[in-house]
Amino acid sequence: MSPDTTRRSDRSRRAVLAAARDLVVEVGYPRLSIEAVARHAGVGKQTIYRWWPSKGAVVLDAVRALSEDETGGITLPDTGDLEADLKTVLRATAVEFGDPALSALLRGLYAEIAVDPELAMLYREQVDRPVTEAKLARLRAGQRAGQLHPEADLALCLDLLYAPFVQRWLLRTGPLDAAFADALVEATLRAFAPVGDVE
Amino acid sequence: MSPDTTRRSDRSRRAVLAAARDLVVEVGYPRLSIEAVARHAGVGKQTIYRWWPSKGAVVLDAVRALSEDETGGITLPDTGDLEADLKTVLRATAVEFGDPALSALLRGLYAEIAVDPELAMLYREQVDRPVTEAKLARLRAGQRAGQLHPEADLALCLDLLYAPFVQRWLLRTGPLDAAFADALVEATLRAFAPVGDVE
Repeated sequence: MSPDTTRRSDRSRRAVLAAARDLVVEVGYPRLSIEAVARHAGVGKQTIYRWWPSKGAVVLDAVRALSEDETGGITLPDTGDLEADLKTVLRATAVEFGDPALSALLRGLYAEIAVDPELAMLYREQVDRPVTEAKLARLRAGQRAGQLHPEADLALCLDLLYAPFVQRWLLRTGPLDAAFADALVEATLRAFAPVGDVE
Repeated sequence: MSPDTTRRSDRSRRAVLAAARDLVVEVGYPRLSIEAVARHAGVGKQTIYRWWPSKGAVVLDAVRALSEDETGGITLPDTGDLEADLKTVLRATAVEFGDPALSALLRGLYAEIAVDPELAMLYREQVDRPVTEAKLARLRAGQRAGQLHPEADLALCLDLLYAPFVQRWLLRTGPLDAAFADALVEATLRAFAPVGDVE
């Protein structure tokens, strides 16, 4: 492709993702249509289907583009204090999930992922994995610094930290506030404390 | 209603729920239609819409009917050993979620719940709450027996125990096996141990 074509493609791609983001907030995921996304983005429907196999794939990409915009690369804060850093991160995540636009996008994505194994795989590889790697790196640093049990299962540690958070958001069972974020961090760190009640 | 009408209604209701269960496994939730459920159940579409406002509501009821069939009332085992009992329960849940029929039903339900706040509320009240109450009762008994910290937040304890399990199932990030069930129980009990590293 010529540089001009690449620029045009890139502009179209970003227009499609922005349109998907805006429309999912406006009409909700179930009523989001590829037709409407194409119209709002000023591209043909075929252009969208050339790049994305499904509505779910467009929304997945819109979510990914959003986290790219915000963080560039993904690095978690490391002040040397694991508990404080995890609280910072989880509180910030609570604020992010409170944003109606991101929340609507993610809800649409979760709805599709629940019933679409292909999309679940894309989500794990393209959205979840880079973030998980960054989180694991921070936990490993804490483990090296003696703030986690030397044999702690760090993947399980991440599960305890984040899954209750996502579940509360998904099922709307309670507020995603700083108190909940802090309580999760404290409970998880107790479970993997350097000198714990490990049998 | 005469006793005959009640019996007929009850028979129709059970036929609809059974048809929804069978069809969701056969065609998947996204392609499940009220028309097909009515046809398979041998009732009119209007009969379904008289009792259930939406496809999601039918599936929610089918899930609830399933757990009613299996357990009657809901009581968790209490041998006096909290850790052993929780492992028994979580291992059994892992087996349940491995059943393709129940898994397909629950995936359809989760997909709708993610984007439908009304259905999320019905789910919390009609499916989740009775089960949660039973689990909390078992944790309270363990707490009285000195197997959990006297000030442990038992709702948070349940979150740590079950949310990672549901997330792994939903995102298909790993096997739901006995090893994972046991690891979750052990980590959660460490987090709320009677003499822990609580600050």
